[in-house]
Amino acid sequence: MKTLRISIIGFGSVGQGVARVISMKQDYLQSIGLDLKVVAIVDSKGCEIDAKGINLNNALERKATTGTVALLDKDSIYVIKNIEHDIVVDTTPTNIETGEPGLSNILTAFEHKRHVVTSSKGPLVVDHKRLVETARKNNVEFRYEATVGGAIPILNLARDALAGNKIERIEGILNGTCNFILSRMAEQEGYTYEDVLSEALGLGIAETDPTSDVEGYDAACKVVILANTIFNMNVKFEDVAITGITRITPEALKLAADHGYVIKLIGVVREGELSVAPKLVPKGHPLSVRGTLNVASIQTQLAGHITVSGPGAGSLETASAILSDIISIYRTQ
Amino acid sequence: MKTLRISIIGFGSVGQGVARVISMKQDYLQSIGLDLKVVAIVDSKGCEIDAKGINLNNALERKATTGTVALLDKDSIYVIKNIEHDIVVDTTPTNIETGEPGLSNILTAFEHKRHVVTSSKGPLVVDHKRLVETARKNNVEFRYEATVGGAIPILNLARDALAGNKIERIEGILNGTCNFILSRMAEQEGYTYEDVLSEALGLGIAETDPTSDVEGYDAACKVVILANTIFNMNVKFEDVAITGITRITPEALKLAADHGYVIKLIGVVREGELSVAPKLVPKGHPLSVRGTLNVASIQTQLAGHITVSGPGAGSLETASAILSDIISIYRTQ
Repeated sequence: MKTLRISIIGFGSVGQGVARVISMKQDYLQSIGLDLKVVAIVDSKGCEIDAKGINLNNALERKATTGTVALLDKDSIYVIKNIEHDIVVDTTPTNIETGEPGLSNILTAFEHKRHVVTSSKGPLVVDHKRLVETARKNNVEFRYEATVGGAIPILNLARDALAGNKIERIEGILNGTCNFILSRMAEQEGYTYEDVLSEALGLGIAETDPTSDVEGYDAACKVVILANTIFNMNVKFEDVAITGITRITPEALKLAADHGYVIKLIGVVREGELSVAPKLVPKGHPLSVRGTLNVASIQTQLAGHITVSGPGAGSLETASAILSDIISIYRTQ
Repeated sequence: MKTLRISIIGFGSVGQGVARVISMKQDYLQSIGLDLKVVAIVDSKGCEIDAKGINLNNALERKATTGTVALLDKDSIYVIKNIEHDIVVDTTPTNIETGEPGLSNILTAFEHKRHVVTSSKGPLVVDHKRLVETARKNNVEFRYEATVGGAIPILNLARDALAGNKIERIEGILNGTCNFILSRMAEQEGYTYEDVLSEALGLGIAETDPTSDVEGYDAACKVVILANTIFNMNVKFEDVAITGITRITPEALKLAADHGYVIKLIGVVREGELSVAPKLVPKGHPLSVRGTLNVASIQTQLAGHITVSGPGAGSLETASAILSDIISIYRTQ
């Protein structure tokens, strides 16, 4: 049995999902020889620390009733620097301009020889190269499956399962909110963009400020991460040509349908093209998935198009991608 | 740089694909630190052996012009026993009654402490448990990604990329020939099963004796392999309830289409159900892929349904799955 000690930095929907999943999967983790202890949890108001392992159900309960997990007045940087542990799990909110607070958290973790698993796109969009190089220099692992496609193992698929296969192009639906809006507009005659957006807000599928989703910015972040990770590019957010979905009319969707197509917001990554834009997809094509699903089609040199779809968001779904990253680090030890 | 020496046992479409792919990917393999040498190739007429590494282009050329790679009159068992090498790549034809010749090849390899990668379903359908236990006892690796879904990394996805996620159910289209026939019948009004079967024969998509495909036997083999591998069952071919596609009429497909459905031959694996049968799938559902594509939808405890599709057959496609298995073994060394 090997013990790995982790911290959870950020205790919102994803951070709480991680605590729940680790609590649920204790038997499984023991069965593969992994004793996984959460020794610190940090939120914006402070932290809980317990070197013997935090009682996760108590922490979740306290967060639900008091709004914070905090028992001590220490912040993430203090915890990352001073608490002995192996893996920092960063689930802080994404800021694509500064990359903070994830960027400082992750760099501090590397400098203290701790592995990092993150669900935050910000640090990767702002400073991918520096992060990867700092991890390598400190001889630690850096994993971020949850940043692209939520629960769908796109990065792991490209790295491990398709090993040896040159990847020539990736395209896909990388934002579930946009897919929901376009799917509903296509299926419900006369529904405008505004009608469906209100519905999505009501269902908790869209955020109060939906700009990042509907303008294609969130999908563009994922394009950047895919480009830098799988294609070894060194590109920034500004390098992606972006068109959102706000001007798509019911008439356009109807016209597409009459000709056997659906309209989807598609991100494309290949040598010479980084883009997010509405595109026509033939009905029955592997990319024509509906609802909030995400999908990525990976064009390989030898294996044709391998397409993978699934839920692109959700607390437990995203946490499951984080857990698979933790297990992957455990297996490299 | 680490050297791994392999033998290719069976030099038909898949075996030749493996030789081609290894020849194509030398630069990539060197870049990951792997010096991969083919030291023996065996076909039904004999073998070529070269401890320094066979010239693969010459071997392929000789096979194309003379019908055999043989320079020596030695068979697979001789090569596996006597030639020093690390990995046996078995690409011999599938026999689901005896499992031979793959079964004896693989067991002999394990007894001589050689890892095995195979594309042959027969040995796994006949004697999965014995193979896995013999590999474990001899402390060698046993990989067979190519047996299910050709190029689609279903087994690797379940084992690595979805690590930590309990898999509750797998269902999918596991035979490309049946998918082609049903897709064409649905799209081409008035086309009967017999019409499309002739077309598929002409295109080389169906085999001269299509029984194994159209009666669902091939898909049932894959159900058995998935059940034994991913669900740790210990089941046989006889445990699968099988209905093929030969009695599906154009009228049934038309009726399904009128109600928004397609008919697909679906294999199902879950606790309490092992089956292959034609089923209604809603249009736009991730399983409703067309043409010769294969697809598997993996229902997970935490990550919802993760669906993966791609080419289920083909020489280079299948060889690419074999190469990813070889690289995976290299990474465990």
